[in-house]
Amino acid sequence: MKPEYTPDGSSLVLVYLVLGTHPQKDVNVIGLLTTQLPRAGETILGHKFFIGFGGKGANQCVQSARLGAKTSLICKVGKDSFGNDYVENLKKNGISTAFVGQTTDAATGTASIIVNSEGQNVIVIVPGANLLLNFEDLKRASDVICKARVVVCQLEITPAVSLEALKMARASGVKTLFNAAPALADLDPQFYTHSDIFCCNETEGAGDSFVGALAFYLAYYPKLPMEEMIRKSNCIASVSVQASGTQSSYPYRKDLPQDLF
Amino acid sequence: MKPEYTPDGSSLVLVYLVLGTHPQKDVNVIGLLTTQLPRAGETILGHKFFIGFGGKGANQCVQSARLGAKTSLICKVGKDSFGNDYVENLKKNGISTAFVGQTTDAATGTASIIVNSEGQNVIVIVPGANLLLNFEDLKRASDVICKARVVVCQLEITPAVSLEALKMARASGVKTLFNAAPALADLDPQFYTHSDIFCCNETEGAGDSFVGALAFYLAYYPKLPMEEMIRKSNCIASVSVQASGTQSSYPYRKDLPQDLF
Repeated sequence: MKPEYTPDGSSLVLVYLVLGTHPQKDVNVIGLLTTQLPRAGETILGHKFFIGFGGKGANQCVQSARLGAKTSLICKVGKDSFGNDYVENLKKNGISTAFVGQTTDAATGTASIIVNSEGQNVIVIVPGANLLLNFEDLKRASDVICKARVVVCQLEITPAVSLEALKMARASGVKTLFNAAPALADLDPQFYTHSDIFCCNETEGAGDSFVGALAFYLAYYPKLPMEEMIRKSNCIASVSVQASGTQSSYPYRKDLPQDLF
Repeated sequence: MKPEYTPDGSSLVLVYLVLGTHPQKDVNVIGLLTTQLPRAGETILGHKFFIGFGGKGANQCVQSARLGAKTSLICKVGKDSFGNDYVENLKKNGISTAFVGQTTDAATGTASIIVNSEGQNVIVIVPGANLLLNFEDLKRASDVICKARVVVCQLEITPAVSLEALKMARASGVKTLFNAAPALADLDPQFYTHSDIFCCNETEGAGDSFVGALAFYLAYYPKLPMEEMIRKSNCIASVSVQASGTQSSYPYRKDLPQDLF
């Protein structure tokens, strides 16, 4: 039986509004307010509108899958067009969607990103269905959680649900990788005791590629020294920052130096 | 044969991001920048995300249809989830979609609206597929344009295409109603000579309900004095501002005082 990598993760549809004529890579650029970003009461004309797929959990899962991992994502999306497209995207990446729930009680989570021609952006995140992922959903997925080789959690769903997933995994001897992102001021200290690896990296876009790669090495090369796993994961993340987009920038195993495997 | 009302119109999917906990009616509130609207480099948490259907052409068409008019919308959307949902919405409203094109060359037009709890908003419009509606599309629809009783145009598509539609209609003796919105600084003076009715109203949200109602009266009660048509259309528009949303606020014939008909 092939080992599984199971992130208990978030799913966000990324809605991009590009204002300038030179679409930028999706990076968070901290900057000052310019007249090219809209102000209250303003209606401005955008150049391009496009939709991508994100959420830390899903991103990390996609990176693991592209390295060859057998993966399953536990998350919740809306029973709407975005949700349907979301499930399709996971399937295209070879990820099991057996535990991707679709609810009519909330819309698919979204991150709306307004980017101007200088790469400055504003982001509005509406978690939507992500916050409805609950203990019941974890119970339904307990088989996949408890038989996985690695379970990866983040903080884009209700923290108590992430923590419960880590506990379930730990109780079955499953390795846990916790990515404490986005940062939370009053993190429950139990997260420290239930994480084999506590990863608080959060750099521009490459963090999810790194975590996905690290989960892959933990599951498939468990005897590698940790330093070596981190070095290899960094190599993979550094490839992702050289292409545009989020998931679209994540490399496939076949396109990487084969000494990484 | 029943007369037709044919707007040559725009189609926009409305993407709402509600920041506060009290979703407001979709009105443009001109105000000062508050800290509750995001600034460059900021990532903020939204309360609700929802999608509606708009575009002046489609809105006006929906209002006409709800009053009992036989309508057809000539527009272009993307071959994407938004476009598919858009066509479904028109069908639900009993509007002919025979001349609603779907293109792979651009995304469905969108208006992304960030609303805070005080009703202040910022809007980013990305016309997308709307700008690809061209003379060829008009030619294909010439039968419906030239046999209509009223053709209604606006300025959310390429102005030259709107003008051409008005010319085609006029050449066949079809009544033309031109809604010069959104306002354009250097409007081609031919718009004045090819419009039977030149309507430059643009008040908060009720403008499209008014234009849709006026088109209905022009088509079905052509002998009413113009003052009477305008009075009745104003009555209908005044009902729309008492409900929330855009198209969702437009009244149906059965719910209106029957002396309007």
